[in-house]
Amino acid sequence: MKNQKFFDSLCSKESILQTIIDESKDIGYYSLPEQEINHIQSFADKNSKKNIVVIGIGGSSLGAAAVYDFLRYKKSFDKELFFCESTDPVLLNSTFSKIDLNDSLFIIVSKSGSTIETISIFKYILSLVPLNKEQFIIVSDDGSSLHQLAMKNSLPFFEIPSNVGGRFSVLSSVGLLPLALIGVDIKALLNGAKAIKESFFSQGQAYEDIVCKASFYASNIAKYNINCLFSYSEAFRSFNDWYIQLWGESLGKRQLHSYLNVGLTPIGLIGPTDQHSFLQLIVEGKRDKSVTFIKVKDFDTHMKIPDITIEFLEKLDFINGVDFSDLINKQADSIIESLRNKHDIPLDIIEVDKIDEFAIGELFYYFELLTSVVAKMIDVNAYDQPGVEEGKKILRGFFN
Amino acid sequence: MKNQKFFDSLCSKESILQTIIDESKDIGYYSLPEQEINHIQSFADKNSKKNIVVIGIGGSSLGAAAVYDFLRYKKSFDKELFFCESTDPVLLNSTFSKIDLNDSLFIIVSKSGSTIETISIFKYILSLVPLNKEQFIIVSDDGSSLHQLAMKNSLPFFEIPSNVGGRFSVLSSVGLLPLALIGVDIKALLNGAKAIKESFFSQGQAYEDIVCKASFYASNIAKYNINCLFSYSEAFRSFNDWYIQLWGESLGKRQLHSYLNVGLTPIGLIGPTDQHSFLQLIVEGKRDKSVTFIKVKDFDTHMKIPDITIEFLEKLDFINGVDFSDLINKQADSIIESLRNKHDIPLDIIEVDKIDEFAIGELFYYFELLTSVVAKMIDVNAYDQPGVEEGKKILRGFFN
Repeated sequence: MKNQKFFDSLCSKESILQTIIDESKDIGYYSLPEQEINHIQSFADKNSKKNIVVIGIGGSSLGAAAVYDFLRYKKSFDKELFFCESTDPVLLNSTFSKIDLNDSLFIIVSKSGSTIETISIFKYILSLVPLNKEQFIIVSDDGSSLHQLAMKNSLPFFEIPSNVGGRFSVLSSVGLLPLALIGVDIKALLNGAKAIKESFFSQGQAYEDIVCKASFYASNIAKYNINCLFSYSEAFRSFNDWYIQLWGESLGKRQLHSYLNVGLTPIGLIGPTDQHSFLQLIVEGKRDKSVTFIKVKDFDTHMKIPDITIEFLEKLDFINGVDFSDLINKQADSIIESLRNKHDIPLDIIEVDKIDEFAIGELFYYFELLTSVVAKMIDVNAYDQPGVEEGKKILRGFFN
Repeated sequence: MKNQKFFDSLCSKESILQTIIDESKDIGYYSLPEQEINHIQSFADKNSKKNIVVIGIGGSSLGAAAVYDFLRYKKSFDKELFFCESTDPVLLNSTFSKIDLNDSLFIIVSKSGSTIETISIFKYILSLVPLNKEQFIIVSDDGSSLHQLAMKNSLPFFEIPSNVGGRFSVLSSVGLLPLALIGVDIKALLNGAKAIKESFFSQGQAYEDIVCKASFYASNIAKYNINCLFSYSEAFRSFNDWYIQLWGESLGKRQLHSYLNVGLTPIGLIGPTDQHSFLQLIVEGKRDKSVTFIKVKDFDTHMKIPDITIEFLEKLDFINGVDFSDLINKQADSIIESLRNKHDIPLDIIEVDKIDEFAIGELFYYFELLTSVVAKMIDVNAYDQPGVEEGKKILRGFFN
């Protein structure tokens, strides 16, 4: 992948490498690209159930969903993957009506082991399918309630390393297990991440890109408090959701050494659809947004606009014979050029080579590193989420 | 519907009624609730094609999609509805592989009549299905290129009133025609809108709610530049997208009487899913966001969490026997209470009675009026989108 930035002159390259090296000794996601995955792959290779049902919410599902939605337009999988995350009755009803439960593998994913949405749905499934070691798999922290349940009932258990947080867990068993089960090349996914890791820690291009952007975001946090990810393909829709959780939940915090609430607000956009929605606000609205475009260099699809003239619409014949993938990339370029002409909208372009496992592995690790570096620069702990605890306590109180 | 606000003391009730009454003489959306719809309904009643395929982008599809996604969990339709909006080749490929083109009705929706995405896809379809008056319908402005094409070929034509803008057009033939074709009760949809209209113009509760909120948003535009819509049901996912276009594209503008770029940034969230993503940023991040919760009073589904105790998870038995719809509403209430405890996050709650046509009709008109009133208060033209023109010109230039 390639990252072009149009605000280089505005950003300094603070020396933050040692700080990140120090942090990487305690924070687990940094070392996930090198992990041993044979046990995951061999478990996946033995499975014969047709439906893979992930029961998990937030960090327990967004990463796997991002990869699945990225690849599903290009690749045909021999298994079906479902996500049950919400307690929303309309959604549960509709999801379960589509699944043959007897031909399903249920992966219960919860870092704490006691996420209320996950356990509610787990109970619902247990009213239909008795707990058995052929159909239920637990992915959780070592020692959690779910881990104990797995041991007692000999359920397959995959550990989430305790120093890997939910939103940084896509490259752990949380993401790898369901993805391996449907036939995703998880080795290539890790290799993509590894490429960015090596480039960053050797102070190569990824270091240059990430530190430049992070220092711009951090030093302009009061003015540009919104960061848009404008992804030019439907394939990125769930990746955008993954980015929103990562960015919002990691950076929206009280500062460690102040009483101040700080944060950067993520927005996920899909091109060209959102040219007809959010774009006007970027072009003419308040100058409070940076924009990162994501483009695909080679869509590897060949679908041309036919050479047909429609009467009264001859003026649009200039698109005749153009490949749809050229059109979408030119649409991205035209918007980029029009925003650059404004001179006060910070923007950069990330281009991935193809829609494949390696590419999304790169993107995951790139955005995780970017998040970690920005967090250091704005003095917040990227890895906790204390703000969501109060709501859980209040909910518990409603049932007393 | 009911709208509870928790910042009443902070907002004034400017007298803006006369300004809106004056505007409603020129701007067409205001009078859509009273329009004649017999020609739409009788056309729909005669159709026998199984697939309804809407070719349109932005305001030409978001409104119908919002209604369809809202109702589809509750209602079974006898027709299939598809939306083709993007030039994204991966998406087009996947959509067309699912549709039996011979059993399809294609609705070409473009206000200008020359939207590049829409015409590209139209051409693509024409390479597979010849233009014929049994399968192609045009929805466009009177006198547009598409209107001329319809007349020349005797295609059914439905007019978009020229003073109804794309993002305010859901209650015109743009939304009503595809919705009537799949069996949505479009009369009830308009009645919901009418209820809000009457309450607003008679200075009833809707006037009170809308003017109070609008004046708060306008007078705090520099501090609270982000407005989150936190909707507690998956049924609202496409409604959120509709809101994002309406809010962003209408309010992100240069002021009419200044050189300043102003705007309010819309965010769409779905509960409880986004409690595990964006919520942390609202609770502990920078105080730059207001939050509007949308709740459903009666989901009219009955799906209980079974009375099952899971060993090691006995502490979660308090949810046993609870209906999922009670749980989701209590989850919303717990988050609302935790945000109210912060005292510096402006929030309000909209509660609709049910998931039905009347309810979403109310919501459309409520948010349209809110947008119009805020636009007046921040001195922008809610009904144009000049910022998106430059990109279109640049794109055209790429093909010379």
